[in-house]
Amino acid sequence: MTFRDTLRNIQAQTRSLLCCGLDPDAERLPAGLPGTGNEAVPEFLKAVVAATTGLVCAYKPNLAFFEALGDCGTACLRDTLRAVPEGILTIADGKRGDIGNSARMYARALFEDLGFSAATVNPYMGEDAVRPFLEYGDRGVFVLCLTSNPGSADFQRENDLYLRVAEKVLQWDESGNAGLVVGAQHPQELARIRALVGNMPILVPGVGAQGGDLRDVLKAGIAENRSGLLINVSRSILYASDGLEFASSAREAAGTLSNTIREVLF
Amino acid sequence: MTFRDTLRNIQAQTRSLLCCGLDPDAERLPAGLPGTGNEAVPEFLKAVVAATTGLVCAYKPNLAFFEALGDCGTACLRDTLRAVPEGILTIADGKRGDIGNSARMYARALFEDLGFSAATVNPYMGEDAVRPFLEYGDRGVFVLCLTSNPGSADFQRENDLYLRVAEKVLQWDESGNAGLVVGAQHPQELARIRALVGNMPILVPGVGAQGGDLRDVLKAGIAENRSGLLINVSRSILYASDGLEFASSAREAAGTLSNTIREVLF
Repeated sequence: MTFRDTLRNIQAQTRSLLCCGLDPDAERLPAGLPGTGNEAVPEFLKAVVAATTGLVCAYKPNLAFFEALGDCGTACLRDTLRAVPEGILTIADGKRGDIGNSARMYARALFEDLGFSAATVNPYMGEDAVRPFLEYGDRGVFVLCLTSNPGSADFQRENDLYLRVAEKVLQWDESGNAGLVVGAQHPQELARIRALVGNMPILVPGVGAQGGDLRDVLKAGIAENRSGLLINVSRSILYASDGLEFASSAREAAGTLSNTIREVLF
Repeated sequence: MTFRDTLRNIQAQTRSLLCCGLDPDAERLPAGLPGTGNEAVPEFLKAVVAATTGLVCAYKPNLAFFEALGDCGTACLRDTLRAVPEGILTIADGKRGDIGNSARMYARALFEDLGFSAATVNPYMGEDAVRPFLEYGDRGVFVLCLTSNPGSADFQRENDLYLRVAEKVLQWDESGNAGLVVGAQHPQELARIRALVGNMPILVPGVGAQGGDLRDVLKAGIAENRSGLLINVSRSILYASDGLEFASSAREAAGTLSNTIREVLF
């Protein structure tokens, strides 16, 4: 089964296109958690995962935040991945990109050692930086296309570079496992990209704290097969409340987003 | 003192522009090292660092290879960094790039927790992905410009994107700590970039295993102040021999490169 089909099945089963981003910032944890500083992170994340189960089709750990935890980062990441229920996708958000022999090492670390079902990668270094990830045919590879941040205007829009990226990724996709990352702030461009790439999976960050509108994204980005779109929300779920009711607040935030998606699509 | 001045001083003291890349591949270690598989890596790297001391101005651990070591990767990286003599630069080659709040986490992990003196970063996501690194004014930030791999032709050359990157990095550089990465395979473009960026540090991978010519690079890339160029060599030093004489072979390989640099420049 291709990654694209796996994604469609999971989205049909969960009736969700929602991806919960896991960006554990020790400075933003709810007060009163057991443990101090970094120690509290694994319990916090496991509680968020448990609270949002059934409402999301994927979890997306942001590797930057785990690396910033220092020595306990990798153990915390493994702990978190173990807490994700079977059949739900895990996306390594590390935006890696390096020459072939280095890219192979990144892919091995993320797909073999850590067992992620998908990863985000950076296209700047071209095909040989992306290919080693694509060679894991059952894993998803989301290539940055038009990102959600202000800096997306610096190079990605220059001569429509983001469209060249989308075209190349389409060419490179021999196993139905390539995808793109397109920020929620750009619904018009998302529609243009969708028209270009058919049912290819698109991961959309930027709804919530970054200001993107969920209904606009759904309208612009859903594929013909009613799948192919993964809506990532991180901070608005994780830090929905800064008190000890954080887990139920996270569930509520995810539920509201999930309901909007279901209203529009299912 | 700016990073640019620090680099110039170290290069004058060591009479070297050479950077030794540390890409520890457990499958390529010399036979007969104590320990098996990943266990042998720290001793291997420490022996290479000890053998090449005095011949290089920087070491550049490639984070992909350390991540591929699994749980022992971070400890091995710390061990290796501790073995680098005081006053010699350490460059985190991770090519990170993410939106502002994530980039801050990567910068914190590399500059504060691990204590690197410089890092490579990816420009695709624009200024807010690079700025958090630049804000550490005493650390070097080498932004990918025109890389050494075949995939550099896919996007970087499209409408001279690599020149737009060089121009933007020049604009962003308020503290004299920005640099660029330009592959040794492109001496003509290197000369064009050098003309654009003055004395800005340029890290040049691709000499050796990847086929770039050292003399061409020196001629095209050296700055007016006789500094500003860092020539990275990884595999040709690390794996100069696959026997237990690997350390003396590494020293010999580094010595040959270093002599060529001294002949041309000092």
